[in-house]
Amino acid sequence: MGEFELLAKLRERLGPPGPRVRLGSGDDAAVTVPGGATATSVDAIVEGVHFRRDVASPAQIGHKALATALSDLAAMGAEAGETYVVLGVPEDLGEAECLQLVDGMVALAERTGTTLAGGDVTRAPALTLAVTVVGHAAAPELLVSRGGAQPGDVLVLTGELGGAAAGLALLADPALAEVLSGETAERLRRRQLEPQPRLGAGRALAAAGARAMIDLSDGLGGDASHLAAASGARLEIEAGSLPLAKGVAEVALANGADPLQLAASGGEDYELLAALPAERLGEATIGIAELGETTLSQIGTVVDGVGVEIRLPGGGTLTATGFDQLGH
Amino acid sequence: MGEFELLAKLRERLGPPGPRVRLGSGDDAAVTVPGGATATSVDAIVEGVHFRRDVASPAQIGHKALATALSDLAAMGAEAGETYVVLGVPEDLGEAECLQLVDGMVALAERTGTTLAGGDVTRAPALTLAVTVVGHAAAPELLVSRGGAQPGDVLVLTGELGGAAAGLALLADPALAEVLSGETAERLRRRQLEPQPRLGAGRALAAAGARAMIDLSDGLGGDASHLAAASGARLEIEAGSLPLAKGVAEVALANGADPLQLAASGGEDYELLAALPAERLGEATIGIAELGETTLSQIGTVVDGVGVEIRLPGGGTLTATGFDQLGH
Repeated sequence: MGEFELLAKLRERLGPPGPRVRLGSGDDAAVTVPGGATATSVDAIVEGVHFRRDVASPAQIGHKALATALSDLAAMGAEAGETYVVLGVPEDLGEAECLQLVDGMVALAERTGTTLAGGDVTRAPALTLAVTVVGHAAAPELLVSRGGAQPGDVLVLTGELGGAAAGLALLADPALAEVLSGETAERLRRRQLEPQPRLGAGRALAAAGARAMIDLSDGLGGDASHLAAASGARLEIEAGSLPLAKGVAEVALANGADPLQLAASGGEDYELLAALPAERLGEATIGIAELGETTLSQIGTVVDGVGVEIRLPGGGTLTATGFDQLGH
Repeated sequence: MGEFELLAKLRERLGPPGPRVRLGSGDDAAVTVPGGATATSVDAIVEGVHFRRDVASPAQIGHKALATALSDLAAMGAEAGETYVVLGVPEDLGEAECLQLVDGMVALAERTGTTLAGGDVTRAPALTLAVTVVGHAAAPELLVSRGGAQPGDVLVLTGELGGAAAGLALLADPALAEVLSGETAERLRRRQLEPQPRLGAGRALAAAGARAMIDLSDGLGGDASHLAAASGARLEIEAGSLPLAKGVAEVALANGADPLQLAASGGEDYELLAALPAERLGEATIGIAELGETTLSQIGTVVDGVGVEIRLPGGGTLTATGFDQLGH
């Protein structure tokens, strides 16, 4: 199958274009009328580096590529708009798998109101997905960078930590699942394979006055450090307040690891960490609760200084070396 | 060198952000205030598929990746705005080469008024560049799709044809260069390695009322077919009117090929093909001449019907099979 035929088949699977799209996939460029401000981010995942085809289905790979990109828009408090996808296809990926991959992406796109407005397909030695996402807001001031946290702000976190890292451990060593119910093990594996971008929560936090926000791709420690550095402030996090996903403690212990360390350093949870004015915590909590998709926990505060400190319940801290890992 | 250090070094090399950019590289997403309409396109090039590192320098690879993406914006008549780059870096590509690659991209970005506003760096088995470009216009009606050509329109072409294909032949078989002066051979090689997006010409043609436009990445025959199909019209092209780049005829003949066939089917010239109302040909010609960057040739007309016919000077036509190739 040639490039053009594959592109034609892929285009048939796309949903109807969103309200800002005037000319979709198939021309030299897509034409949109944004209005207000746009937030744009790119993310790439490569077979053998970020995923394995013997563990993740084509639909899960497509889903995750788009989900991780959309997570960056969630962290800006933006509304999802359009996505543009480069697909690098190796010789041994058949047409059926290619279409399943796009179907996984299209399903998430439709659920999040994202238009797949363009793309490029090329041969590549390993399956590669490079995803550009464009989000929208009425004005640039409504988008939340990493750099506005102020001393006195509270630190809040959506959802639960450690699930994606525990899921990865389960996929690497299926025998670990013996300490869990089948349902819990499956939920952890799906946290790893099918992350959910917190788009609604991101907009709710932005509306509640979030001054700085970041999504957790590299792990809480690493990403908190980015937010602290960009804001020129110090983040004090109470490890005892960290919400662990169900089963994370069991997997960590069975794997000879400390549950809190796993929660603080495990990557790919794609939850949102935000700094809020303390007086708006109630408003943010209600906003997230009304969405009914995830929870909100207060995990610490912003103070004068630099860096991140994660305080253990019994005294002492988790060290920064625990965060010294690379994610994407 | 880790991902974060490389990203930091790459960021140092970027020029100042353009007027629409409110938050550049380094946060979860870039923030822009577009105003009017945007044209967005993605293009990817992969080592071993689109380029070879033993032939193209890192700076040329970076240049070409951005140039081919910007060429799509030229074909819309858009003003270049922002670019977002995914860099897939193989183990054997050193830091110095990585930075040279980005320098090649930054040089073209600065020359075309493009802001490198974001990106992602990842490991990959082969050097991979996926480039998203965003262009701008005051309103969506000012952007030119492939689909508006009407019977009676004249077909115009910027610049010269066959240079990139002849350059590719010279790179594959250096002995072919014996039939050319050193200067001509070098110019042809650079047509292949350092294509120039016709951004100014694209805007001039849009301003002169171009009803349909496409850039020549796959070759005149193939790309003319796309424009004909999108417009629901037939394109009649006079092969005798095709402007051949200097040296193309000599390389074609030395290679046992027909010069006109090479000009009509050779890809990667990245010139623009446009359909114009006949009465505005003079205005378009003056607009292009005033830019002083390239020429404009009338090469045919739009008529009722379907498909593309390229008529040979002595009678007969070049067949569509001559265009049955894949480019990018």
